Amino acid sequence: MWDIALTALQDLSTAANAALREADEPHSKVVRFPDTQPLAMDAGVLLAPLTIAYQTYGELNAAKSNAVLICHALTGDQHVANVHPVTGKPGWWETMVGPGRPIDTDRYFVICSNVVGGCMGTTGPASTNPATGKPYGLDLPVVTIRDMVRAQAMLVDHFGIDQLFCVAGGSMGGMQVLQWAASYPERVFCALPIATATRHSSQNIAFHEVGRQAVMADPEWAGGRYFERGLQPTKGLAVARMAAHITYMSDEALHRKFGRKLQNRSAPTFSFDADFQIESYLRHQGSTFVERFDANSYLYVTRAMDYFDLADDYDGVLARAFTGTKTRFCVVSFTSDWLFPTSDSRAVIHALNASGASVSFVEVETDKGHDAFLLDVPDLIATTRGFLDSAARARGIAPARSPAGVA
Amino acid sequence: MWDIALTALQDLSTAANAALREADEPHSKVVRFPDTQPLAMDAGVLLAPLTIAYQTYGELNAAKSNAVLICHALTGDQHVANVHPVTGKPGWWETMVGPGRPIDTDRYFVICSNVVGGCMGTTGPASTNPATGKPYGLDLPVVTIRDMVRAQAMLVDHFGIDQLFCVAGGSMGGMQVLQWAASYPERVFCALPIATATRHSSQNIAFHEVGRQAVMADPEWAGGRYFERGLQPTKGLAVARMAAHITYMSDEALHRKFGRKLQNRSAPTFSFDADFQIESYLRHQGSTFVERFDANSYLYVTRAMDYFDLADDYDGVLARAFTGTKTRFCVVSFTSDWLFPTSDSRAVIHALNASGASVSFVEVETDKGHDAFLLDVPDLIATTRGFLDSAARARGIAPARSPAGVA
Repeated sequence: MWDIALTALQDLSTAANAALREADEPHSKVVRFPDTQPLAMDAGVLLAPLTIAYQTYGELNAAKSNAVLICHALTGDQHVANVHPVTGKPGWWETMVGPGRPIDTDRYFVICSNVVGGCMGTTGPASTNPATGKPYGLDLPVVTIRDMVRAQAMLVDHFGIDQLFCVAGGSMGGMQVLQWAASYPERVFCALPIATATRHSSQNIAFHEVGRQAVMADPEWAGGRYFERGLQPTKGLAVARMAAHITYMSDEALHRKFGRKLQNRSAPTFSFDADFQIESYLRHQGSTFVERFDANSYLYVTRAMDYFDLADDYDGVLARAFTGTKTRFCVVSFTSDWLFPTSDSRAVIHALNASGASVSFVEVETDKGHDAFLLDVPDLIATTRGFLDSAARARGIAPARSPAGVA
Repeated sequence: MWDIALTALQDLSTAANAALREADEPHSKVVRFPDTQPLAMDAGVLLAPLTIAYQTYGELNAAKSNAVLICHALTGDQHVANVHPVTGKPGWWETMVGPGRPIDTDRYFVICSNVVGGCMGTTGPASTNPATGKPYGLDLPVVTIRDMVRAQAMLVDHFGIDQLFCVAGGSMGGMQVLQWAASYPERVFCALPIATATRHSSQNIAFHEVGRQAVMADPEWAGGRYFERGLQPTKGLAVARMAAHITYMSDEALHRKFGRKLQNRSAPTFSFDADFQIESYLRHQGSTFVERFDANSYLYVTRAMDYFDLADDYDGVLARAFTGTKTRFCVVSFTSDWLFPTSDSRAVIHALNASGASVSFVEVETDKGHDAFLLDVPDLIATTRGFLDSAARARGIAPARSPAGVA
């Protein structure tokens, strides 16, 4: 009775093995860069060989001018607009990406790659370390947002694309967008950073640290060597996900959606069962997450976000990150997002204005919290459509030949 | 290197044993109610024998009119204004309680008892179950805020006090204050609920559920039977505390206090060490907490808060909880408290106004978050002093004979 919460996590060997296979043999296209093309990492080491797993949608035009790079968030991956190979669920941004959608795959060539440090085929802690024949575990150097972006640039080179039409993403994806605009300004025609910041706040680092400690406190984490021992720190990872998930939602939305409603009962049980719907919901979020995500990747990718502080590379003056940029920016925040509040986006706007950049800013009114960037929020959809349509005309990208007419 | 975080928790057998001893043989006064005086619990059972551990400060006057009952918060205890017997630290409310303080022990007789379900001597899950001779563990019925208050009323009866001059407390202590005012209106001359609510929000239940799952996910929790097995779920409890601690502070205070400052280093280590001061601080909070608190008590007391919904006992109409009350109320909230925001206090005020009660309300401007009720916040101190002085004059309580003159 008392341990019903995470008992479903006891027998995950199948799912764990699936995740392990996905790390080396993903259900995605891959580019395997040879040892002669290593990734130069901020940690001061060269990572080789580097594998990048990615998905594409639509067709690259002859001028190679219509490519949109989508950068995924902490627990996202490259499966933006197709059925996920592990969960069987729809792509994570199908509201935004597809035929007739704002990021219209009838018009644009859309690329999304799994980040370095991830677990869906790009080199990460679950990937086989060629030096040992075993998963890297914590032998993988700590990854930064800039490392992720450098790897993406190698993929873009692989396609022979000089300039991306757009780089877009929310949350950690937005951090990558900002890093792209700073590192490769001539390669980004327009940029769409959503619900993000140029640096991770103390509170956000704190929540990430709780998640990492939850993982590391699980004895089945085994110092990161769980795969070799046939273990999985699923309970610790589930707790980490539960804590994080609260931060993705607003207090208002939780109140509206769950309030103090009881789960399939008319009175409290006077026990530690999931009496309240919010408890049941959170447990479900925890238990489904561990079926698709690698615990060590969770450590690496949260760490990358914590380390992110774009101004640090420019003597602490954020505006210098964008000096002379010709990139067009559209910055979006959400009124109820307390993880990356509007004040974070305003700091980006101030820096861009100080750089004389072309920038528009939309604060979308919604009670859906940080996760609004993933949801069907009409003002977000309309903003993205308007910004991209206008930029595409400026870039001379032909309209979709057979628009699907999806509003 | 990777497991430095909570390694200090490995050898806590001494601390664990100390906690166990404190549960049955506390460094406090105790009242041991016989089996003929059981506690009637909301779970529908009679708990006997009931032990209540408490501290008092000052002297009860001849009219027994100067008693102040202080109700402690989630992880607090009866050691309000004396050195804590386990941690050796000062009492948790010495800013507020003592000679010349707003709750002036030269004037008032101050009582604080450990709550039912706690671990400092009042009957709780670490106490010996007389039926088995072993700690109750999860065999203790689930406790509610009303159960805590019923037990306190038994203690007040024990002192022969008909009417308390004041019932005061913050956070969960404030929930008890409101329950006192609703259950025993004629026994509460004035009430001071601080940073509290008449019901726990969905978001707050969610954070508590994360904490409970962190404890239960620790294999050393052992279904709650850890004491008998010589174990302690210290890692799970530390993670629970870390997550909770974030919610006690405001984003602004975290930014001001820690920002992105590094801990004893000039550059990030590219590791999972506690590079950032906030990480180090949180780990410290987690590791010191487990030395003084029982994991099962954490489950029980968080559950009591989650179950609290005062209006539920009054057909959902909160105002009916206070119909005809003569108690004088002073409700206090803090601008930066996002766990029990001012809107929660306003709901109390609306209900009290609808009941025609005597009520004042102060929203204190501070960036210290929920924990402000524990801190030296001048406006809180001044508000409390003014409210109590005025009420004491109305009650005819003599001024302190030898005021210490502490401002």
